[in-house]
Amino acid sequence: MKNILVIGSGRSAVTMIKYLLTNSNNNWFVKVADYSKHLALDAINDHPNGKAIFFDVNDSKQREKEILEADIVLSMLPASMHITVARDCVRLRKDLITASYVSNEIANLNKQAIKSGVLLLNEIGLDPGIDHMSAMQVINKIKDKGGELTSFKSFCGGLVHPNYDNNPWNYKFTWNPRNVVLAGQGQAQYVENGQYKYIPYNDLFRRTEIINILGAGDFEGYANRDSLTYRKAYGLEDISTILRGTLRRKGYCEAWNILVNLGLTDDSYIIENSDSMTNREFINMFLPFISNKTVEDKLCERFGISINSSTYNKLEWLGLFSNERLSVRDSSPAQLLQSILEKKWILGDNDKDMIVMQHQFSFIINNKEKRLNSSLLVFGDDTKHTAMAKTVGLPMGIAAKLILNGDIKLSGVHIPTLEEIYSPVLQELEEHGINFVEELI
Amino acid sequence: MKNILVIGSGRSAVTMIKYLLTNSNNNWFVKVADYSKHLALDAINDHPNGKAIFFDVNDSKQREKEILEADIVLSMLPASMHITVARDCVRLRKDLITASYVSNEIANLNKQAIKSGVLLLNEIGLDPGIDHMSAMQVINKIKDKGGELTSFKSFCGGLVHPNYDNNPWNYKFTWNPRNVVLAGQGQAQYVENGQYKYIPYNDLFRRTEIINILGAGDFEGYANRDSLTYRKAYGLEDISTILRGTLRRKGYCEAWNILVNLGLTDDSYIIENSDSMTNREFINMFLPFISNKTVEDKLCERFGISINSSTYNKLEWLGLFSNERLSVRDSSPAQLLQSILEKKWILGDNDKDMIVMQHQFSFIINNKEKRLNSSLLVFGDDTKHTAMAKTVGLPMGIAAKLILNGDIKLSGVHIPTLEEIYSPVLQELEEHGINFVEELI
Repeated sequence: MKNILVIGSGRSAVTMIKYLLTNSNNNWFVKVADYSKHLALDAINDHPNGKAIFFDVNDSKQREKEILEADIVLSMLPASMHITVARDCVRLRKDLITASYVSNEIANLNKQAIKSGVLLLNEIGLDPGIDHMSAMQVINKIKDKGGELTSFKSFCGGLVHPNYDNNPWNYKFTWNPRNVVLAGQGQAQYVENGQYKYIPYNDLFRRTEIINILGAGDFEGYANRDSLTYRKAYGLEDISTILRGTLRRKGYCEAWNILVNLGLTDDSYIIENSDSMTNREFINMFLPFISNKTVEDKLCERFGISINSSTYNKLEWLGLFSNERLSVRDSSPAQLLQSILEKKWILGDNDKDMIVMQHQFSFIINNKEKRLNSSLLVFGDDTKHTAMAKTVGLPMGIAAKLILNGDIKLSGVHIPTLEEIYSPVLQELEEHGINFVEELI
Repeated sequence: MKNILVIGSGRSAVTMIKYLLTNSNNNWFVKVADYSKHLALDAINDHPNGKAIFFDVNDSKQREKEILEADIVLSMLPASMHITVARDCVRLRKDLITASYVSNEIANLNKQAIKSGVLLLNEIGLDPGIDHMSAMQVINKIKDKGGELTSFKSFCGGLVHPNYDNNPWNYKFTWNPRNVVLAGQGQAQYVENGQYKYIPYNDLFRRTEIINILGAGDFEGYANRDSLTYRKAYGLEDISTILRGTLRRKGYCEAWNILVNLGLTDDSYIIENSDSMTNREFINMFLPFISNKTVEDKLCERFGISINSSTYNKLEWLGLFSNERLSVRDSSPAQLLQSILEKKWILGDNDKDMIVMQHQFSFIINNKEKRLNSSLLVFGDDTKHTAMAKTVGLPMGIAAKLILNGDIKLSGVHIPTLEEIYSPVLQELEEHGINFVEELI
């Protein structure tokens, strides 16, 4: 009997827990530990090989007891809380899996983990996770054939399923709304044709490129904050172009750029008594006073758009010019904008989501330049087993199985860029409909 | 014999120290204390009633000794260091004058200062200082006549004297270059026609207004960070328009806006090995890679300007497109831009500077709407006694004289918005050629 401890049972854990329970005929027992026992019970759904417990990660006695009883730990805690669990895991010699970026604190546990024979496997969700694995598989295949990589661009986005894509933004919240509102703050950096490039935030949503993915049509990609670190992680130190980006549907970025440049995504100061204000008054705060000009006119003039444009239509559809009252008080512009968006970009009870990812490789092989795209399209099953929950949770679950079965035998701090990890994980992901399509173009 | 202690003898202290020494036939002795005794000696210039000493503000024994020997202290230290001196002044019952904004820490000394009968007079330089005094004089005059203020806008700028104004920006550094490069970061807030307005940084230099000052021609004003606090300070709680701003010559802001929106004023991250880069490469980092397009073309296209425009000419004149090497390494974009500007915007040895200020009042009196402008134009004498040094230092010196002579009898923390202070200070400033011209328009 192997004991699996899952810490945290929120949105993204549900599919992972279901996977572990479905595979529990491997003589597994799955304990789901959450501060909300109710959430944990929901995730177990009366499965005979599962148990829900109340769990307080700050209770060191309980933490030690539960980790000691487990053969492996999967942490779905907020990223900053992994370190507490990771320290115990190293001390008590238990492997740990997370979908979060390796923090400096976690990285510093590497030597100790190796000494204790413990694996701390991180960044094995969607992004980071599936992106690492699928990119490395292609990169190594190209290198094995003697190819030399000259360009690597990679885009990922969480969007609404095309059948439920019925608003002018072609966007609904399928993930943390606050992260969507604050996306891209600070400058983006990447390398193109050997030149280092910086994009300031106010220009980020104007510097997009069009991406076509499988049958899903056109998207636009904007650059992520830091593409440079991927050179080392992927063994591409000498590559002359590297860019990572986020995908939205065509037209989203032009309209979002207006919200950014108006100042509506600023999270650095509070507007007092904001709940006494209407959406229209809120927008008007960021436009100059011009007598005899409406808010709509001032906005269109400022950004050089017409009242008949699809961009204007997006803004109007959000209710930005309406006399509806803001619902939160003493909040930052970003929080106020989020409260407006949350009423409009809601994923309905019957809606499904979609994950899109595309890696674009250029390489030279036999003195010829070639281009290859590797693309992923995943649809959600329902509002519980969303594409996001599946693509974040399944890689973690599969990795847990591989470790418990002894197919992955590593120790130390890792991310899934090693073939020993990515090859079997990607292979099993295909069985779950998560598979990349490669096109030489 | 009255002992005056001046702490700090940098650029802005020189004219103030000269004023105190010139007036030392009032039976004054002026001690100038600086960490650089050399600077202090320079400022004393062998005057028989002055003495220069080495002074370390962090040496509490020396600080106490020198403050104890003084009848009044004038601090020209960096703003954050006033509090140490202020605490000693309250404890040792000595009046203190500074030209800096009242910090919360200083404000908290108010009760103790009143109890000890000590005056802590702050914000009595140019801006803050002369702005407070001259505005309050007009505001009180209008109120005394039964007028009701409806709008108050106030602009100030430190620029180059028209006779030495010989570059396309019509600007040279007459003050701290770093402050000029970072000016306006964070959002600006003001009130116009009863509406609260915010301007994000990336829009600040586009939202300017044209100001004509006396015979000095046209300027453009951009909004300062926070205009709202002046309502309470000036007793204008119910005014429906209040805006404070900074003056530049016409055309400056359009070109500066390009530097801001490119990302060149960002001080939040470091560009490694920046000294291996040319100006041209530096600019190109912030523009996309487009094959067959020059840096010049890409910049013009991004900002919709022509290569024949005066704005383009300003950028080219700075050498932004040149192959000159950057002179500082591992620096932020803002530091790199500053290093480029410092070579070009240098105030020559024979150049003079200029201070311009204008208050614009609208008010209703006898049911009629009236408008009144009050404007100031001050020229520097030379590179030592600049307009900046005179307008910062003389109000402090005059205030010291008034306090020592018993003409100002206040205790507690003050700024010069009281008639008891501003009236005699403004009167004596006129003798030094610092006088406002009022025009009913």
